[in-house]
Amino acid sequence: MAVYTDLTDDELDTLLAAYDLGAARAFKGIAEGVENSNFLLETDAGRFILTIFEKRVARDDLPFFMAVMETLAQKGFPAPQPMRTRAGALLCEVRGKACTIVTFLTGVSPRKPNAAQCRAIGVKLAEMHRALDGFGMTRANALAMAAWAPIITPRLALAEQLRPGLADSVKADLTALAASWPAGLPRGIIHEDAFPDNTLFLGDEVRGVIDYYFACEDALAYDIAVCLNAWAFEPDRSYNLTKGQALIAGYESVRPLEQAERAALPILARGAAMRFFATRLRAWEDTPPGALVRPKDPLEYADKLAFHRRATRASDYGA
Amino acid sequence: MAVYTDLTDDELDTLLAAYDLGAARAFKGIAEGVENSNFLLETDAGRFILTIFEKRVARDDLPFFMAVMETLAQKGFPAPQPMRTRAGALLCEVRGKACTIVTFLTGVSPRKPNAAQCRAIGVKLAEMHRALDGFGMTRANALAMAAWAPIITPRLALAEQLRPGLADSVKADLTALAASWPAGLPRGIIHEDAFPDNTLFLGDEVRGVIDYYFACEDALAYDIAVCLNAWAFEPDRSYNLTKGQALIAGYESVRPLEQAERAALPILARGAAMRFFATRLRAWEDTPPGALVRPKDPLEYADKLAFHRRATRASDYGA
Repeated sequence: MAVYTDLTDDELDTLLAAYDLGAARAFKGIAEGVENSNFLLETDAGRFILTIFEKRVARDDLPFFMAVMETLAQKGFPAPQPMRTRAGALLCEVRGKACTIVTFLTGVSPRKPNAAQCRAIGVKLAEMHRALDGFGMTRANALAMAAWAPIITPRLALAEQLRPGLADSVKADLTALAASWPAGLPRGIIHEDAFPDNTLFLGDEVRGVIDYYFACEDALAYDIAVCLNAWAFEPDRSYNLTKGQALIAGYESVRPLEQAERAALPILARGAAMRFFATRLRAWEDTPPGALVRPKDPLEYADKLAFHRRATRASDYGA
Repeated sequence: MAVYTDLTDDELDTLLAAYDLGAARAFKGIAEGVENSNFLLETDAGRFILTIFEKRVARDDLPFFMAVMETLAQKGFPAPQPMRTRAGALLCEVRGKACTIVTFLTGVSPRKPNAAQCRAIGVKLAEMHRALDGFGMTRANALAMAAWAPIITPRLALAEQLRPGLADSVKADLTALAASWPAGLPRGIIHEDAFPDNTLFLGDEVRGVIDYYFACEDALAYDIAVCLNAWAFEPDRSYNLTKGQALIAGYESVRPLEQAERAALPILARGAAMRFFATRLRAWEDTPPGALVRPKDPLEYADKLAFHRRATRASDYGA
């Protein structure tokens, strides 16, 4: 939620000269994402988002992310469309950093999604998977199951400090997940981070799915598991079965699940919760006390893990 | 540069129901100002900025600031126009905090203003002073000369730590300012914070002057002095006489200075530098080490004070 890079007028003019978008009419830093600097950029050609990539996003992965977005936009999926430079590139450079200019999408991120919105995101998730079927590039999931223990184990003392007893239960979760993580499920390119704040709605209609900087190849059903964690829990961290049912039914209206995917949903949902617990725990540790921007609470995902520990059937999630 | 308050969908809907602006079509936190939460809000009626007032802006002062903006906008000055609620109010409330919805102004804040832009802001500053001539409300300058020593004196050790020798020179400045601060200059409502990042340009044309939350009654020429500090210094903190000349000439093309104002420019400019040194020193002390958002460097204004100590004639500033 911070702008890290600010541009001088000359830098902005030089950047825009590489594109065929005309001159800047508005330019404002926006509080979107925590990894990159984002700006609302209005030019003679319309409204765009300029993203400057800070260190966290690996430069080698950028062409993959850009191609995912362009492919989706070209197929009519509501992803931001990266503009190409006059030279035909999807990426440009400013102040020694890679950057991209993508179309601005209208819509509001639901802070408290309702069931109709859960169904709508389920539909869109399946449409995205379909649109990326046969996509020519790939990227390994850097936050797949094998990555969780190396992030969490050195920070078990912090977990225990946040909530007594948490270290032991998380250790047991990691063991259980490693022992029963499913293999052989249908794979493809997934979003991996389709949280409500990465979506834009007008009413109950999805107008945008943004932020593809975790996209990777993994089990398609794992993307559903991420969304169940992000969309179907209430602020009090209880699971709303109606919303889970709506999300899964929306997905299946486009791409019906195979029996193995349905059966794997509980373990996938537990794993997805562990993935976000891991990265939130790391961010919590990395943030100095008193910092203006507080990281998200790792305990939100500790609570979701507690639900997943008890829920063992697909029907517990609404499938 | 941070969003402090985020709104749920319900809160946003409830807020918009108080206005006649239709439903939200886009809603994004923007990195503007450090005191308040600001959002780009697009509705069926157009584009707006929603500002939620955090603690720093005194609630009792808000009606004054709102009336200043509305008066300016109604007179055709490019200030954001506050929207009135259905009940006719210029302020509304959300999550127990006061808020306002103002028109979105197109334009880009110059990061490195040129001389033509300095002239243009001089013109606009004088137009603003003219437009607020006879304004029915008033507000004392909370950061007038009498406020500087109480902010700086308890922090002289910090100043000395930032630059050895600074404590003594600043103490001498405060004494000199108190001894020779001018009285009897023409007064009126001033912006008091018309920095480049509070202005919006298309090319060399001013399209917006924003952020009226320091507006107050004071000597009109003091507003010029603030702008000379903010616009006519180069990034290396040298004074660009051409830019100073342009700013003053632009101002005088609308409202010629009286002889006493011209003569007072050096001491007013030195005082304005002291005012920003004082508040930056305080912000520096208030920010915990390691905070994500660094405050602005107080030494920028220590350097400007060094220039003002030597410049004693109006011609040194381009008048």
